[in-house]
Amino acid sequence: MRMSTLFLRTLREDPVEAEVASHRLLVRAGYVRRAAPGIYTWLPLGLKVLRKVETVIREEMDAAGAQEVHFPALLPREPYEATNRWSDYGDGIFKLKDRKGADYLLAPTHEEMFTLLVKDLYSSYKDLPLSLYQIQTKYRDEARPRAGILRGREFTMKDSYSFDVDDAGLEASYERHRAAYIRIFARLGLEFVVVAAMSGAMGGSRSEEFLHPTVIGEDTFVRSPGGYAANVEAVTTLAPEPVPFDGLPAAHVEETPDTPTIDTLVAVSNERHPRADRPWTAADTLKNVLVVLRHPDGRREPLAVGVPGDREVDPKRLEAALSPAEVEPFEAADFARFPALVKGYIGPGVLGTENASGIRYLVDPRVVDGTAWVTGADAAGRHVYDLVAGRDFTPDGLVEAAEVKAGDPAPDGSGPLELARGIEIAHIFALGRRFAEALDLKVLDENGKQVVVTMGSYGVGVTRALACVAEGNHDEKGLVWPRELAPADVHVVATGKDPEILLAAERISAELLAQGVDVLFDDRPKVSPGVKFKDAELVGVPTILVVGKGLAEGVVELRDRRSGDAEQVPVADAVARVSAVVRG
Amino acid sequence: MRMSTLFLRTLREDPVEAEVASHRLLVRAGYVRRAAPGIYTWLPLGLKVLRKVETVIREEMDAAGAQEVHFPALLPREPYEATNRWSDYGDGIFKLKDRKGADYLLAPTHEEMFTLLVKDLYSSYKDLPLSLYQIQTKYRDEARPRAGILRGREFTMKDSYSFDVDDAGLEASYERHRAAYIRIFARLGLEFVVVAAMSGAMGGSRSEEFLHPTVIGEDTFVRSPGGYAANVEAVTTLAPEPVPFDGLPAAHVEETPDTPTIDTLVAVSNERHPRADRPWTAADTLKNVLVVLRHPDGRREPLAVGVPGDREVDPKRLEAALSPAEVEPFEAADFARFPALVKGYIGPGVLGTENASGIRYLVDPRVVDGTAWVTGADAAGRHVYDLVAGRDFTPDGLVEAAEVKAGDPAPDGSGPLELARGIEIAHIFALGRRFAEALDLKVLDENGKQVVVTMGSYGVGVTRALACVAEGNHDEKGLVWPRELAPADVHVVATGKDPEILLAAERISAELLAQGVDVLFDDRPKVSPGVKFKDAELVGVPTILVVGKGLAEGVVELRDRRSGDAEQVPVADAVARVSAVVRG
Repeated sequence: MRMSTLFLRTLREDPVEAEVASHRLLVRAGYVRRAAPGIYTWLPLGLKVLRKVETVIREEMDAAGAQEVHFPALLPREPYEATNRWSDYGDGIFKLKDRKGADYLLAPTHEEMFTLLVKDLYSSYKDLPLSLYQIQTKYRDEARPRAGILRGREFTMKDSYSFDVDDAGLEASYERHRAAYIRIFARLGLEFVVVAAMSGAMGGSRSEEFLHPTVIGEDTFVRSPGGYAANVEAVTTLAPEPVPFDGLPAAHVEETPDTPTIDTLVAVSNERHPRADRPWTAADTLKNVLVVLRHPDGRREPLAVGVPGDREVDPKRLEAALSPAEVEPFEAADFARFPALVKGYIGPGVLGTENASGIRYLVDPRVVDGTAWVTGADAAGRHVYDLVAGRDFTPDGLVEAAEVKAGDPAPDGSGPLELARGIEIAHIFALGRRFAEALDLKVLDENGKQVVVTMGSYGVGVTRALACVAEGNHDEKGLVWPRELAPADVHVVATGKDPEILLAAERISAELLAQGVDVLFDDRPKVSPGVKFKDAELVGVPTILVVGKGLAEGVVELRDRRSGDAEQVPVADAVARVSAVVRG
Repeated sequence: MRMSTLFLRTLREDPVEAEVASHRLLVRAGYVRRAAPGIYTWLPLGLKVLRKVETVIREEMDAAGAQEVHFPALLPREPYEATNRWSDYGDGIFKLKDRKGADYLLAPTHEEMFTLLVKDLYSSYKDLPLSLYQIQTKYRDEARPRAGILRGREFTMKDSYSFDVDDAGLEASYERHRAAYIRIFARLGLEFVVVAAMSGAMGGSRSEEFLHPTVIGEDTFVRSPGGYAANVEAVTTLAPEPVPFDGLPAAHVEETPDTPTIDTLVAVSNERHPRADRPWTAADTLKNVLVVLRHPDGRREPLAVGVPGDREVDPKRLEAALSPAEVEPFEAADFARFPALVKGYIGPGVLGTENASGIRYLVDPRVVDGTAWVTGADAAGRHVYDLVAGRDFTPDGLVEAAEVKAGDPAPDGSGPLELARGIEIAHIFALGRRFAEALDLKVLDENGKQVVVTMGSYGVGVTRALACVAEGNHDEKGLVWPRELAPADVHVVATGKDPEILLAAERISAELLAQGVDVLFDDRPKVSPGVKFKDAELVGVPTILVVGKGLAEGVVELRDRRSGDAEQVPVADAVARVSAVVRG
């Protein structure tokens, strides 16, 4: 690769829409270019890195005994209809019709097709276990494509699927994939945390995410000192023990003028209705939040969610808990349809399918029988005190929707949780039999009996992992690639106008190439040394060899991009020295 | 690869829908599997061969100085709107909307996006020449997907684009691509003919197709002894010299009852109106055929085409000549709207925009001024004789729509044409400035003046080329891969129940692998030798090593899949012998 002809233009300015470093630098250094919102073109340098990431993944999947296949991206509706995902995905997938009016989709993931393929070819327990994978282009019609290739609408994914005859087999396949993923991310030099996750639209018994911890992450996860880790959607609440009703005071309604918020309610309660033992706090109140669920079939259902007043409803946790329904705001027009709802003073008295509003009412797991709450009395300026769950009101069910806070106890008793942010780079699912049942994938077992196959599905975001590597390997000057992923082994920079310099740099580059060292050679004749150095730092090849004015004294300069360290090397030793460095 | 675990099931029966050998055998041998009409999944063996085909293409493109990039398949409408191709492609492309209602397409080819990318990055003649390519998934909503991966709706294509500052540069880029393609197909072992082609929707000054000659081909092409070669759409007619009108007899209408066809007209003419010098032939008659053009904007336009009566209208030539309009039948309902048309007796008297029907009238180039014709008199049972072109009627223009026949003269005077069939495996276009003009791709020339860039576009059907290789390399037993493309170097088959045999085969396979020889090892324990041999012949690895009962005498059998030749090799020499054979 010669910079004089390489299809590359580095940019000095950040692209206006770029919010995160990987996006900014991959565009500025000429690795990718935006083609449409969330849709990117790979330029020569970017494609080289992408192929190297794919190679790492391919090698580890092969080593784990998975076999590579390649499915189409354009797929017919029917298999996705059979598993309900055609509708469950909602607006999240691209749908289209062919010239005959038949429905197709651009696949966001391929469980159905792999299931059908195995059904097509295999029929006996002797054929299993089987793991198949592909590295393939996926499509999701993201509402908010962002951060360059971190969250795109067309992206590369490695997805694999395991097929086993029984649960023990699935467990082994799951563990094999998990171990392979750990090796993959270690080789990519990518820090990661494995966290418990919700299975969501996938269903299944067990699911974990690999998160790359970073402040720009869209996902929040928790960790405890004792080793618990989960994304917030998957955190379960440690509910207190129920309290016997005996001796609990009766509920009583009080005047609480101008208290439409929890803060005002607590203040007025302490002022007008103080409790004897201690002041009221927000945790004593029960806040009732209204939302609308949009179900996959388009149906809109109002829903009330009750959480302790010291916590917000976390929209992601709520949505995960109610998936595949999506959560939308409860608008003024919705209020108009339910005259029983008194805004700011809504309480369990009117909520629930059996009560005046008829609105389904789900509460936080902390609202156990016998707990007493201050909550809306369904009349302006009034709240009810000592309203006891299970005695004075009965919700329609529980929901994990309250925000998780730092310091909350881990559900497994392993200590207080801390919160952090991360990017999902892989997700593994012990799917179980949902897809095999829906698509009738069975094999004969040892006794000649038909049994439903049990499956796992395992995905790595290939282009996203690349972006995370860039995110975690850069400084203010540009990218700093790990050696295994760099677009070249060494960046040879010829500086100065002396023709001898260019000749020497040519000769060194040719000798390196002959030794199998991949060279990016900056041979541009009319570009200043300053610009060349800036470009080399931006592009981020880990080793830079400068052939310049030192040549007159018989030396060249070997620079380490990451540390910035430079050493003078006799020109006669340059090739051997570079070879040794790039081979580690 | 071990057959005991390889994801493969060979089929003894041909798939019902398979018409051609490559389709039949690639499915039966477990290389591909149909996912939807014209949409295929690549199984492990198929993917290996596909990657090898891609590698050959990639190496030759790199050697020709082209740089690899990778574009999205999902693209916004706007660039294709700017070049009219959004509508010109009609039903031939997949279109869709995203969740915001914006229009997208699945790209059938990427001229627009490459043009915009170069515009985005480059601005000077010094940046050119430039050649970029990608190996990428393409989409076309074929009306009749057929023959497996020969004509699919999702397929892999290598497309490249050249950018030059002047015509001489384009010519050089075009020739460089042409030469690279010749090397590619030679390496793939694929017979090909380079023929002149129409540029069609692409526009441009020069275009050639690489056709793989085969009787199952959908394209017809012609060749002359003197070296002329073209696909039939591109063949131009050698028009005769105009004839002076002086002395030509006047036109006269005659009764020709029951002559709605050319055959009946010739017979009746010879019977009732014989000519003095020789009998009438079909070539003396002018046949007028009505069709309807569907324009990209949806407009339907009736059209009359006049050709000598000894030739049919060739729908492909007609459509190519009138592209991007599509040709549809002229239906009974259309006749009803034009009372001037007398079915079976339609003549130039009512045709043409200036005449009674108002229908545009295009004629074959042989209908030059002064030629006299027998043709319909626009009344039932009547024809007009001695109707002279240019004197008695004036068509609206010429059209190359008459069928090309074997023996027709080559337009360059290089002798009589012969016809053959082939499959288009590549197409190269000297596009010129059409796309650069539409999308405003200009660079500064040496004099600091803005000049429009001139472009070429060059495509190889990657999956189609693979199918052609299969088509040209098989026998009644199965596939016979060329060595460079085979899914493995050697197929080691262990036969018989003696555990020594399996051990020996294991050892030989391991030693071959250690030497870098890629082994497909049939280690299946309970499969008969007959089934194993049949599978090996079907799968088509060029070298087969049988480790079987000969082992007791210290020999194994080395078979050549193509010739069927077999030789006994001492087991101690087996590894060395196989290595030598597979390395040619």
